[in-house]
Amino acid sequence: MRATFLYGANDVRVDQIEDAKILKPTDVVIRTVVACVCGSDLWDYYSKTPDTVGVAKGHEVIGTIETAGADVRNFKAGDLVVVPFVASCGYCDYCQANQQTSCRNIEYFGHGGGGACQAEMVRVPWADGTLVKLPVEIDSPLMPSLLTLSDVLCTGYHAAKSANVQAGDTVVVVGDGAVGLSAVIAAKKLKAERIILMSRHESRSNLGREFGATEIVADRDEAGIQVIRDLTNGDGATRVLECVGTQSAIDLSIAITRDYGVIGRVGAAQYESIPMNFGTVMRNIGIYGGVAPARAYIEELMPDILEGRINPGKVFDQTVQLDDIAEGYKAMTERTAIKTLIRF
Amino acid sequence: MRATFLYGANDVRVDQIEDAKILKPTDVVIRTVVACVCGSDLWDYYSKTPDTVGVAKGHEVIGTIETAGADVRNFKAGDLVVVPFVASCGYCDYCQANQQTSCRNIEYFGHGGGGACQAEMVRVPWADGTLVKLPVEIDSPLMPSLLTLSDVLCTGYHAAKSANVQAGDTVVVVGDGAVGLSAVIAAKKLKAERIILMSRHESRSNLGREFGATEIVADRDEAGIQVIRDLTNGDGATRVLECVGTQSAIDLSIAITRDYGVIGRVGAAQYESIPMNFGTVMRNIGIYGGVAPARAYIEELMPDILEGRINPGKVFDQTVQLDDIAEGYKAMTERTAIKTLIRF
Repeated sequence: MRATFLYGANDVRVDQIEDAKILKPTDVVIRTVVACVCGSDLWDYYSKTPDTVGVAKGHEVIGTIETAGADVRNFKAGDLVVVPFVASCGYCDYCQANQQTSCRNIEYFGHGGGGACQAEMVRVPWADGTLVKLPVEIDSPLMPSLLTLSDVLCTGYHAAKSANVQAGDTVVVVGDGAVGLSAVIAAKKLKAERIILMSRHESRSNLGREFGATEIVADRDEAGIQVIRDLTNGDGATRVLECVGTQSAIDLSIAITRDYGVIGRVGAAQYESIPMNFGTVMRNIGIYGGVAPARAYIEELMPDILEGRINPGKVFDQTVQLDDIAEGYKAMTERTAIKTLIRF
Repeated sequence: MRATFLYGANDVRVDQIEDAKILKPTDVVIRTVVACVCGSDLWDYYSKTPDTVGVAKGHEVIGTIETAGADVRNFKAGDLVVVPFVASCGYCDYCQANQQTSCRNIEYFGHGGGGACQAEMVRVPWADGTLVKLPVEIDSPLMPSLLTLSDVLCTGYHAAKSANVQAGDTVVVVGDGAVGLSAVIAAKKLKAERIILMSRHESRSNLGREFGATEIVADRDEAGIQVIRDLTNGDGATRVLECVGTQSAIDLSIAITRDYGVIGRVGAAQYESIPMNFGTVMRNIGIYGGVAPARAYIEELMPDILEGRINPGKVFDQTVQLDDIAEGYKAMTERTAIKTLIRF
């Protein structure tokens, strides 16, 4: 089978390797229908020291089950399934509490954590705890939107749920990448009254408006803080969804959160600490969130896609065949693509 | 009237000054029945530069209304009232949302913010928005417990509510001062199953047990983290109530919070930032809380005192007359008293 590996900075290749196979009786092997490139796939793309051994890439995938292990009960060969970006056992206390990213038996895809999903076949551990069946055909036009259930839509939703977005809230979304745009969808689903998207890229802000953003703010840092304050009676927003992960994004998020408001953060922190000091104590600012338990949200979000209420697949503004995946990495790095869909 | 002023480090004096009086028609003036000394009264006690003008002290008080301003509707002369530690208007959006510490017309007691409460008479601004009537006589033995509604009991409760303590939770309380001990009461009220109090002072840990702590941990820092982990299956606690405010206390709190758990923080932050980094993103650690809207909780907590279910007044292990208040500051500084009650 063909699979994607990163060998060094800007050096993504598709190699021919041995087919994925069942290693444990709770595994399945799927044949990939669609996959995609995540912002987190780019973390080491700029900087990786060249090596003769590549790192397997990708953690977002839809596929049909090729082989099911002997202990898999809920799935059989031929089922079309979406794979959340971590494999979780389904029976430990964290899984039972829908906190699957802390599963006691967790297995990661990609990031050097075993198999990877930008590949023709994928071994999925803990199939019963991890997979969700898709009630569509493999040629469904909904496939891009359903693929966002693997990660990005659920991550945006986790930001909104962590910030406890309620009907009538004013929400600011920090970050106009695929996660930020998904957070706009999430805030709208939760009936926020105002959704202010911080975005300085026209194609992204246009998509943000289509997804439900009521206002766009192109300024950043101090200027951005001032504009948000001006838009919110000087107070800031009750809910701020931090979808970037940089120090400046989290600092900005604190500055624009209204007293007693909450920041839902899902940006992978590149910062070491958050300036939550005496001032934020006096203001009762809260922060919650983290890596999203995608599995927890799939059943809740899927009907919105199937019934046409949301169309998160629009974040894919580039589609390539697997052999051309390096083009996708390049385009996302150069920000000429928001997110790249991989066809097989 | 006599009132308490801090003139310099370790220099608290009771001065004879002009009687408190009505300045605005929404004010009342109360005659003090009981007051007390707060940990925050000690913030500048060690370090204040000597000055010929003293800083008025105190923000926790029960009194009878001596005079009510012309616009005060809900209270009249003779009413016995408890005063939460900030004066809030009662009608702005923050007050309506029970977030009175962000009241748009807030006035502080003590801390240089106007009148102060370690005094025979106190001017209370925004009487209708601020005060709560007490259905007891002034010689009630419940007076010390009712006085804790001014601040410390409500602050402990705010820690528990901010951390969203639920029935069955495992809660760690960081800090065995009057706020930490009140947080134990709060966690018990909210039906936490296990309440682990971090305390190394025998009198405080004994009182903690009496209030509902199920376990006491005397270790701090790395050793404390290890003990809490050992007590919690290696996981940490779902709810951690941070009632100190130092860097080591908040660092410890993060380390002992279970994945997807929440820290309720009410300690006045002496730190500049919190180490919420990539690791806490992966663990979905939340932080919420801040300065407590005492006014929001008084009606909810008062019946527990009146009906004898809780006895938070036991945090007062020293009682002095106003003229001897300097003894109280000294004892609390030297930790020979948990909290000092002032009689008049």
